[in-house]
Amino acid sequence: MISQAEQKRIRALHQKKGRQETGRFLVQGRKVVAELLQSTWRTEAIYASEDAAAFIREAATTRAVPLHVLAGFELDKLGTFENGNELIAVAVQEPPPSFRLPAPDELILALDAVRDPRNMGGLLRIADWFGVRQVVCSVDTIDAYNPKVVQSTMGSLFRVAVRYTALAVELSAFASSGARVFLADMDGASVHETRLTRPAVLVLGSESQGLSRAVGGVPSEVVAIPRVGRAESLNVAMAAAALCAEFVRQRQLG
Amino acid sequence: MISQAEQKRIRALHQKKGRQETGRFLVQGRKVVAELLQSTWRTEAIYASEDAAAFIREAATTRAVPLHVLAGFELDKLGTFENGNELIAVAVQEPPPSFRLPAPDELILALDAVRDPRNMGGLLRIADWFGVRQVVCSVDTIDAYNPKVVQSTMGSLFRVAVRYTALAVELSAFASSGARVFLADMDGASVHETRLTRPAVLVLGSESQGLSRAVGGVPSEVVAIPRVGRAESLNVAMAAAALCAEFVRQRQLG
Repeated sequence: MISQAEQKRIRALHQKKGRQETGRFLVQGRKVVAELLQSTWRTEAIYASEDAAAFIREAATTRAVPLHVLAGFELDKLGTFENGNELIAVAVQEPPPSFRLPAPDELILALDAVRDPRNMGGLLRIADWFGVRQVVCSVDTIDAYNPKVVQSTMGSLFRVAVRYTALAVELSAFASSGARVFLADMDGASVHETRLTRPAVLVLGSESQGLSRAVGGVPSEVVAIPRVGRAESLNVAMAAAALCAEFVRQRQLG
Repeated sequence: MISQAEQKRIRALHQKKGRQETGRFLVQGRKVVAELLQSTWRTEAIYASEDAAAFIREAATTRAVPLHVLAGFELDKLGTFENGNELIAVAVQEPPPSFRLPAPDELILALDAVRDPRNMGGLLRIADWFGVRQVVCSVDTIDAYNPKVVQSTMGSLFRVAVRYTALAVELSAFASSGARVFLADMDGASVHETRLTRPAVLVLGSESQGLSRAVGGVPSEVVAIPRVGRAESLNVAMAAAALCAEFVRQRQLG
């Protein structure tokens, strides 16, 4: 059983306001909760079905996280999954990382008004796959602690530092420090014909609107994944995957 | 107003069974319906709000497609969008393309049990972007005419030939004809260190289960996008984007 007050407290984390006021967020499902418990992030409590509790008990015990077994109808009141909820953790947000200039060999991702949760989660997963340690987001980019984003990151959220900031200002600082700023845009030069040296910042815009005007005003180079077919555009996460792969390829070539 | 019978006929297209029995499918939203009307695919009827009708009327008239203006509550009975339906077309499926061997310079995509609709739509969009003209799918891959898939293709469905088939058999035939069969798998050789000659087939598996055993038995080479970070995997559509970009890069190098 779960009290009305506890239920209310957890449901508040479905919304950005509730997450910001408490500094907490929800992590759901076996894969991502297991990743949470393997990470250094703090977990306050876990709510689980009997099956899911058996799955997570050892990890929860090791981390001394209280584990509450609940009935399915109760879990459905707490979780956001549409097709049944079996494992829900309340976790503590990490303090946002401070501003820092890119290291000499570093690639930073910058997100300009990315609003789709699956794209956002996919972008953090891409960052994690390609060794990007810092993701800088405009303030109108979707909250990384949104439950759908958390789910789509598949745990990469716990390994990549995400910061929300006045993006154009920060990009200008990066550019002034000598980092190259690359804007991803379909009309850009082929990324395969661009020497992608580092330190570098790769800026990705929202799918429907492209890059904001302020960001477009930063000294930068525009790059694209060449199109040989007829699709009008690539989804922002797919474009990011192809661009980051090329950054890694060129560095590995030396 | 729309009759109960017509409503029932359209709602049947939400399900695979209804689509297969009638050879029809739904196309929804301004972007994708506009793409449908610009394509050679046949459209039987369009149902629209007043606003959406104004948007699509010229294209519908040019193509002689009946356009029915309906109230929002009626459109919500027909469409599958959760946040309101304003534009719904009933379109006619194209006959599936016949089996053919890849042309000398061709790259074919093969999908093995891809089940997520957004990934499937994204993969067709990637095919379209990178000039892949043929996508071959295992029979347990999600239906390309699923409304969520159609939406995620952003119109690429109308430009890429999709066929469902006994995938391992067909891949063996491709291999016997001299095409190289590349399996995408995290444990594969770096795609950047593999000479990606054509004709070629790039096989992508489902995210959770990887490639099926039958497909794994086909003579093939395993390739991967090198990982430099710590994510456990890339989403199948993001991996496909990076791999296809590398195929295109290597061909453009000559």
